[in-house]
Amino acid sequence: MFRFQRHRLWPRLYDTGACCGSHLGLTMRRTAFALLLLLSHACVREASARRDKGHVSVVVVGATGDLAKKYLWQGFFQLYAEQVGSGHSFSFYGGALSEAEKGAPALFRILKGLECPSGVSEERCALLKDRFPKLAQYRRLDAAEDYAALAEDVRLRLAREDLAEAGRIVYLSVPSFAYADIADKVNRSCRPGPGAWLRVVLEKPFGRDLDSAQDLAAELAKSLREDEMYRIDHYLGKQVVSQILQFRKDNRKSLEPIWNKHHIERIEIVLKETLDVKGRIQFYDQYGVIRDVMQNHLTEVLALLTMTVPADLSGSQEILRRKLRLLSTLQQMDRVSAVIGQYQAYGAEVREELNATKDHVTITPTFAGVVVYVDNAQFEGVPIFMMSGKMLDERASYARVLFRNEVFCVQDPGSLHCRPRQIVFHVGHGDLQHPAILVSKNLFQPALPDHGWKEVKGQKEALFGLPPSDYYIHVPTPHTEAYAVLISQVFHGRKDNFISTEHLLASWTFWTPLLHRLARQVPRVYPGGAANDNLLDFQLQGRGIAFATEAVVLSSQDLGGGAAAAENFQVMQGKYRNSDMVSAWAEELVRQLAADIQASAEEAVAEGGMFHLALSGGSSPLALFQRLAVHHYSFPWRHTHVWMVDERCVPLTEPSSNFHTLHEHLLRHVRMPYFNVHPMPVQLNQRLCVEEDGGPLAYERDIARLVNGSSFHFVLLGVGYDGHTASLFQGTQLEAHGDKLVALTESPAKPHQRMSLTLAAINRARRVAVLVTGRGKHEMITQLSRVKDDPRKWPVTGIKPASGKLVWYIDYEALLG
Amino acid sequence: MFRFQRHRLWPRLYDTGACCGSHLGLTMRRTAFALLLLLSHACVREASARRDKGHVSVVVVGATGDLAKKYLWQGFFQLYAEQVGSGHSFSFYGGALSEAEKGAPALFRILKGLECPSGVSEERCALLKDRFPKLAQYRRLDAAEDYAALAEDVRLRLAREDLAEAGRIVYLSVPSFAYADIADKVNRSCRPGPGAWLRVVLEKPFGRDLDSAQDLAAELAKSLREDEMYRIDHYLGKQVVSQILQFRKDNRKSLEPIWNKHHIERIEIVLKETLDVKGRIQFYDQYGVIRDVMQNHLTEVLALLTMTVPADLSGSQEILRRKLRLLSTLQQMDRVSAVIGQYQAYGAEVREELNATKDHVTITPTFAGVVVYVDNAQFEGVPIFMMSGKMLDERASYARVLFRNEVFCVQDPGSLHCRPRQIVFHVGHGDLQHPAILVSKNLFQPALPDHGWKEVKGQKEALFGLPPSDYYIHVPTPHTEAYAVLISQVFHGRKDNFISTEHLLASWTFWTPLLHRLARQVPRVYPGGAANDNLLDFQLQGRGIAFATEAVVLSSQDLGGGAAAAENFQVMQGKYRNSDMVSAWAEELVRQLAADIQASAEEAVAEGGMFHLALSGGSSPLALFQRLAVHHYSFPWRHTHVWMVDERCVPLTEPSSNFHTLHEHLLRHVRMPYFNVHPMPVQLNQRLCVEEDGGPLAYERDIARLVNGSSFHFVLLGVGYDGHTASLFQGTQLEAHGDKLVALTESPAKPHQRMSLTLAAINRARRVAVLVTGRGKHEMITQLSRVKDDPRKWPVTGIKPASGKLVWYIDYEALLG
Repeated sequence: MFRFQRHRLWPRLYDTGACCGSHLGLTMRRTAFALLLLLSHACVREASARRDKGHVSVVVVGATGDLAKKYLWQGFFQLYAEQVGSGHSFSFYGGALSEAEKGAPALFRILKGLECPSGVSEERCALLKDRFPKLAQYRRLDAAEDYAALAEDVRLRLAREDLAEAGRIVYLSVPSFAYADIADKVNRSCRPGPGAWLRVVLEKPFGRDLDSAQDLAAELAKSLREDEMYRIDHYLGKQVVSQILQFRKDNRKSLEPIWNKHHIERIEIVLKETLDVKGRIQFYDQYGVIRDVMQNHLTEVLALLTMTVPADLSGSQEILRRKLRLLSTLQQMDRVSAVIGQYQAYGAEVREELNATKDHVTITPTFAGVVVYVDNAQFEGVPIFMMSGKMLDERASYARVLFRNEVFCVQDPGSLHCRPRQIVFHVGHGDLQHPAILVSKNLFQPALPDHGWKEVKGQKEALFGLPPSDYYIHVPTPHTEAYAVLISQVFHGRKDNFISTEHLLASWTFWTPLLHRLARQVPRVYPGGAANDNLLDFQLQGRGIAFATEAVVLSSQDLGGGAAAAENFQVMQGKYRNSDMVSAWAEELVRQLAADIQASAEEAVAEGGMFHLALSGGSSPLALFQRLAVHHYSFPWRHTHVWMVDERCVPLTEPSSNFHTLHEHLLRHVRMPYFNVHPMPVQLNQRLCVEEDGGPLAYERDIARLVNGSSFHFVLLGVGYDGHTASLFQGTQLEAHGDKLVALTESPAKPHQRMSLTLAAINRARRVAVLVTGRGKHEMITQLSRVKDDPRKWPVTGIKPASGKLVWYIDYEALLG
Repeated sequence: MFRFQRHRLWPRLYDTGACCGSHLGLTMRRTAFALLLLLSHACVREASARRDKGHVSVVVVGATGDLAKKYLWQGFFQLYAEQVGSGHSFSFYGGALSEAEKGAPALFRILKGLECPSGVSEERCALLKDRFPKLAQYRRLDAAEDYAALAEDVRLRLAREDLAEAGRIVYLSVPSFAYADIADKVNRSCRPGPGAWLRVVLEKPFGRDLDSAQDLAAELAKSLREDEMYRIDHYLGKQVVSQILQFRKDNRKSLEPIWNKHHIERIEIVLKETLDVKGRIQFYDQYGVIRDVMQNHLTEVLALLTMTVPADLSGSQEILRRKLRLLSTLQQMDRVSAVIGQYQAYGAEVREELNATKDHVTITPTFAGVVVYVDNAQFEGVPIFMMSGKMLDERASYARVLFRNEVFCVQDPGSLHCRPRQIVFHVGHGDLQHPAILVSKNLFQPALPDHGWKEVKGQKEALFGLPPSDYYIHVPTPHTEAYAVLISQVFHGRKDNFISTEHLLASWTFWTPLLHRLARQVPRVYPGGAANDNLLDFQLQGRGIAFATEAVVLSSQDLGGGAAAAENFQVMQGKYRNSDMVSAWAEELVRQLAADIQASAEEAVAEGGMFHLALSGGSSPLALFQRLAVHHYSFPWRHTHVWMVDERCVPLTEPSSNFHTLHEHLLRHVRMPYFNVHPMPVQLNQRLCVEEDGGPLAYERDIARLVNGSSFHFVLLGVGYDGHTASLFQGTQLEAHGDKLVALTESPAKPHQRMSLTLAAINRARRVAVLVTGRGKHEMITQLSRVKDDPRKWPVTGIKPASGKLVWYIDYEALLG
């Protein structure tokens, strides 16, 4: 009899809301009269609320898959249990590719195993478990007709039972390649009537890089509106994760003063697993650990920890907007931002599951450590470590905010207030084995909601390096599964816990360059489990990270510093055009030049208190600017004046302006007094480089006023393919400049108008460096080595510092071709 | 017979150099022939070197005092032992106020107790000990005649013995009030002949603040040239301290990459003592712990740790120059830079020793914790803690450089490379009980000189929180007393280990403001010893420190943060001239205003991506600028444009320029793009505020180009005693401004010429704040509250934002008088 019932539409008397009065008798044949009494009060309330709210149809596509089996039906069952008296009625459709003969029993086996949420009385539970399967049916969902038939069934049912429709939830628990097609079918035939909503829930992966994510998003956008898509990241349903913003808001008086770069030493976002990926390799080998958990789960946690918290958490839009803003302020990663590993057995597992030959090699990482920086005033410079891996020593998932030690302990370093201070959002497993929020007692006593959280004492010997008694420990109660939370939020239309298209693409924009850089990098192989020992430990090196175990002793080369670090460079000294020449591979050449500039600066400051540096535009010096910005901690910027060698006649705020480039790559990264920065006055009286405005003369006067003898300490030049230097080109009337230090000139290339230091100005300098890099310059360098001085034809040959020194910095590519 | 001998000049045969040949027999009556043989080889060498170098007379003034007894004679004995074969001859004069009958026996008791340096053979030691006293004599040194007589004796002796004079060392081991007088006497009668040097050694204290130090220096300068003064800081003679620069140089490849703010977490410079100051109170109560050990010893260590290291350590001048430069880059301290304490028994001890009445109260600190910052790119933001106190739990003296934890330990946080990394310059006592340099093994293996240093294993269970096996430990061998080292350096004329006048005044310049601020602060009383427990622990609070034990929980108010921190302010809301008014004590008012500006900024950035803020000159907003600079970490500076409300017609680089003030107090502390800073163009075509140069129009156009509708988001104004605001004064032709946004105006006060936003510009703003603080403004505020709008007479009454909001921020002093 049951089998029969399960294949037809349930008559109205079995409806969700139908819990009162005469209908009740039928469904409760096996239920005691006592139970009836117990429920009757609730039923009265439910009945009165019920009439307005309408019917909700839930369709789970992939209804008998692993995820559905483990979490989804349980989640929908809890939704049902929660909403049973709210005035909504429900029907559930489990869809899959199998015929009903196979699919239906599989579905009902799942439904039979459902468990009531904790806190539900035994009697009520028995009732709920009895009724839920009667609201469900299995459907084959494959071809377009299947979807059309489903829609028709729903329509008929609504009509037949005179039900108002509230909306439809379509949960796609299928591989992502099927999304677009199913979304299309849903769009074509399964949309609800006017006034009712459609919510399509999608599971990751949402692409494997920015391009594929964009493609997928574009495909979905053909069928679904943004507000109809609910992209799930189940981490956002974890109780501790979903509490982060609320915690930050409720404790903001204690947190606000310390939640910044001045107080936070580091943040760790960790997901450790002990399992391998056997059985999932078909999927996993295409993705790897970064795509699998970092681009989504750990990035979500990062955002929740570092975004600004709206005063009002009830609005999804404001939360999403702020989260998006945070994602856009993450600092671009580069090749040193990550270390990757692969567990030893992985290769063999891949060959087995993919039926690959013995020589098949996979470099998909199963472990990654990443360092992320948030590029805003609040968090700049705070390293945020993400770490995840398979086959590690323990299963653990947490985000840990470690504060700087700010206490000076005069006598007893063991006092509580001398010990490390941290806040741990313990998502699950690990030492605690359950979700919890830990706050060091020497920080503050946290406020958590009275309802749903309780304080406990830790049992373990040590939690994150400290005795449990050092913490306030709060745990969520009762424990709720992430999917149950999220399914309820889909039902309530709370979009802030789902991934919007914008948000998804922002995350991929952040991760994709790194993923592409890692695509050819061979991961470090690790044995798995305890045997990994410290093989996977990694450490900061400058802005990046590296494995820690190859060299415990810090290498002196990669970590910046001043002039002395230059000693080991592979640098060649020589002569070029009768002047000194320094040559090396480009990277080392730039190091040497930076070191030489710093030496000049220190000498000048020691001598007269100020260093006057004139810098060229163009692309050659970019690497130099970056090196100076990042590695020269002790550069006397405060006593340095920066001047321009030449400028294009465009507003300074244009990206094509030389000054703008200098600003982006150097000036904005160092602290130099405003008065020491000297852009060329190419724009005067709201116009660009007009002779009568006297820009060159004004600059010349500024130079004369500030620079002793108008003699710069250091002038950095480049040289063009045509032998031009500064903005002195072939055909520039060099003689006409006379003693002038600054002149308007014309370039053969756009923008034609330029302002430039003259040869007279350059040749007054104490030191002039000409930087030439790249194979493209080889021909010019060869030619120049042969020609006589002829500044009209080869302006750079006019560089002859009267009492200073000229040094050529030519990289091997330009020198040797 | 000995008694008699000690009171006359020693005949030449007892001279220092006289170790060879026939003279020897006499002095060695009790010495075996074997010893003669042992020494003979050395004597040959000595004799040949001897002839050229001349005689050195050493005068110790205060020859029988504590210091001389304990260290000085021992130091001179070691000098003698070291130099005995160098070709110099010596005579030693011990001077004091007592008559010879009392002084001479006291001196010779001291000389009898001298000990040979380690490494000297027993035989040689016996010889040295026998001969040294014979070179010494006691002299009463009090009146000018005593010094003259001494000089005459020296002269006679040199003549009689036909000795060339090398130089004279006069060591003043007397209270500093006697320095000037003695220096004067030395100058008048004790100068050596031409070609010989005079070196006068002085012991701290060198003043008790900048003024007194300057006075003393000026007094001394009347008698002595700078190169003749050797101000001793005995800490510089400690073996570990004097090794710091050499260590930094020898290990620079390892240190340079990490010796900066990016890697150093903190530096601690510590001198803990267990003793009280009984017996020294007459002195101590005038000075206290900061003057006693911080202004000198600990500051020297700080300088050695943070100054730049010259490539060549052989030149004193270069070292002194760099040390001086470092001292001048220390960040000015303020009242929150220190915590002070006084041990409980101190008050009673003072009353007893000073014969003071029962109600005598002393607030001289016997404990201090201080935080110092070096204001350069290398160290900015690294807290350098100094700590010293009497009656603490242990005697210890060290400087400790603690590095940031940069390792992410994936599985085993106990691995060596996961443990803290530090370098400890262990000056003495403490856990190790001897001087040592400790370098964590997870940093690098340090290079130390082969000679004079050896590696050892630590014996204790833990050193600075880690097992001894975690360190490379190097100790100096043999151990040498600081005074012996320094006396040798005086002899060799090495000035880099002494305190030059410039250096001394730089240090006092740094410490004096703090000392003056602490002069009325009551120290926290501590019981002494182990009972202090954690009563003296202190912790960072913003840029300052505070005792840690009153409130373990961080207070949310003092530590900055954004708008939310404003909630607890004692702020009154009201109405003034029909507009909103906020009132509070000045400090809280500024907090509220800063919070309101930040809220405006966040709102504007959220809305349109940019915040346009126009700021006034004058002194009222200084506290606001400072607060914004230091406490508003999350202020969106990168998206803020700063405009000027008004400007004086002076070059922007003049301190009287409004922009210059803004730059010093705010702009240079925050990172704002160069393009977002908008000084008023008061100087065009090399002239100031000339109508034809069109400065106002240019500024107006900049505003129009960048600010939506030329409507600033926030305009901050002040109001003058005469009711002026911006640079709109009584008598300014306001009507003539018409729709202009910027105008040239004239002030009744100098400089008369001004550029100012007009009422039209101000009244277009979204929000206008008028900040009024100080009792001096009370009359104006009272008067303004009564008058009608009359902008010609009271320009501030013309502020009527058309569609924005005006808020008055008036402190209680201005409001209530």
